Amino acid sequence: MTTFSIIGTGNMAKAIGGVLADGGSDVSYVTREQVGTAPLADVVVLAVPYPAVDSILEAYGDALAGKTVVDITNPLNFETFDSLVVPAGSSAAAQIQAKLPSSTVLKAFNTTFAATLASKKVGDLPTTVLVAGDDAAAKQALVAAVQAGGVGALDAGSLARAHELEAIGFLQLTLAVGEQVAWTGGFAVAR
Amino acid sequence: MTTFSIIGTGNMAKAIGGVLADGGSDVSYVTREQVGTAPLADVVVLAVPYPAVDSILEAYGDALAGKTVVDITNPLNFETFDSLVVPAGSSAAAQIQAKLPSSTVLKAFNTTFAATLASKKVGDLPTTVLVAGDDAAAKQALVAAVQAGGVGALDAGSLARAHELEAIGFLQLTLAVGEQVAWTGGFAVAR
Repeated sequence: MTTFSIIGTGNMAKAIGGVLADGGSDVSYVTREQVGTAPLADVVVLAVPYPAVDSILEAYGDALAGKTVVDITNPLNFETFDSLVVPAGSSAAAQIQAKLPSSTVLKAFNTTFAATLASKKVGDLPTTVLVAGDDAAAKQALVAAVQAGGVGALDAGSLARAHELEAIGFLQLTLAVGEQVAWTGGFAVAR
Repeated sequence: MTTFSIIGTGNMAKAIGGVLADGGSDVSYVTREQVGTAPLADVVVLAVPYPAVDSILEAYGDALAGKTVVDITNPLNFETFDSLVVPAGSSAAAQIQAKLPSSTVLKAFNTTFAATLASKKVGDLPTTVLVAGDDAAAKQALVAAVQAGGVGALDAGSLARAHELEAIGFLQLTLAVGEQVAWTGGFAVAR
């Protein structure tokens, strides 16, 4: 059984934790006040906005070494909704991996709105979580834990593909904010 | 009624032309041998691989001025399947627009496999064509022509969003080549 620490208590944190708990994983939550002091499980999900990530990495420091760290962020410039705040061609996940050379970073959950994780449906199709990362075993463990929770999950490739996942998340957010898709909809994956 | 010239005669050319003709648009095809000599309609769809675009632009030259030019390409490095051949942060559509300052470039059809245009279904969901561009009227005309053909179409934002559309097309191709999704599936849009 995989054990998860979910840092954050917002809609995404609860939706992700709900899927994982449905699948029988051991899930604990770390609130803002507990960051840096609460012990961490094998897999740490950073279920916070991108600007909040750095302070979490600093607060935990070496405690993240050897862990799988899951980045769910969409690093948008939320003032303009017209660009990302990470360098062109890179990704939030790549930035986080560079800051955590002794951790295994995965990108996941950034292309699924919270409502589609909670309902397990995007429109009429099952929700699919896309997972990118360079460590096949860590990636497969997350895919299996999500699938056990009744939600589809796909290996989306190496951590370099986090760039494409963040592009999907970016576009999906602009479509939802522009009322072109609902927050219960968005991109679904047909196998 | 919008008139379309589709440059190319491959699967994508036929699938796009089929949708547009179903919607009552006037569609003509330009074969490789006719490039540069066949007259062009108001909207020109470059239904060819990205490496073939430049020779078409050169062959037609000023004849493309004032036209709407639709770029459908996914500019992958097809040797590595690990990157695009356009500069980081840019897009094939932006490169084409830079070469055609007197034309209106739209990005469309690059996130829909040919089979999903022909069947009008991605899995159990209706197919949706995502259209990006800076000219609202040209974009709306294409959206309407696709919708008239029985396929969904969404305004995906400014031409800058072609970067995100090409990221989706890139990831979708890698998933299909890796047999994670079928060529009759891929990304669907739930409203």
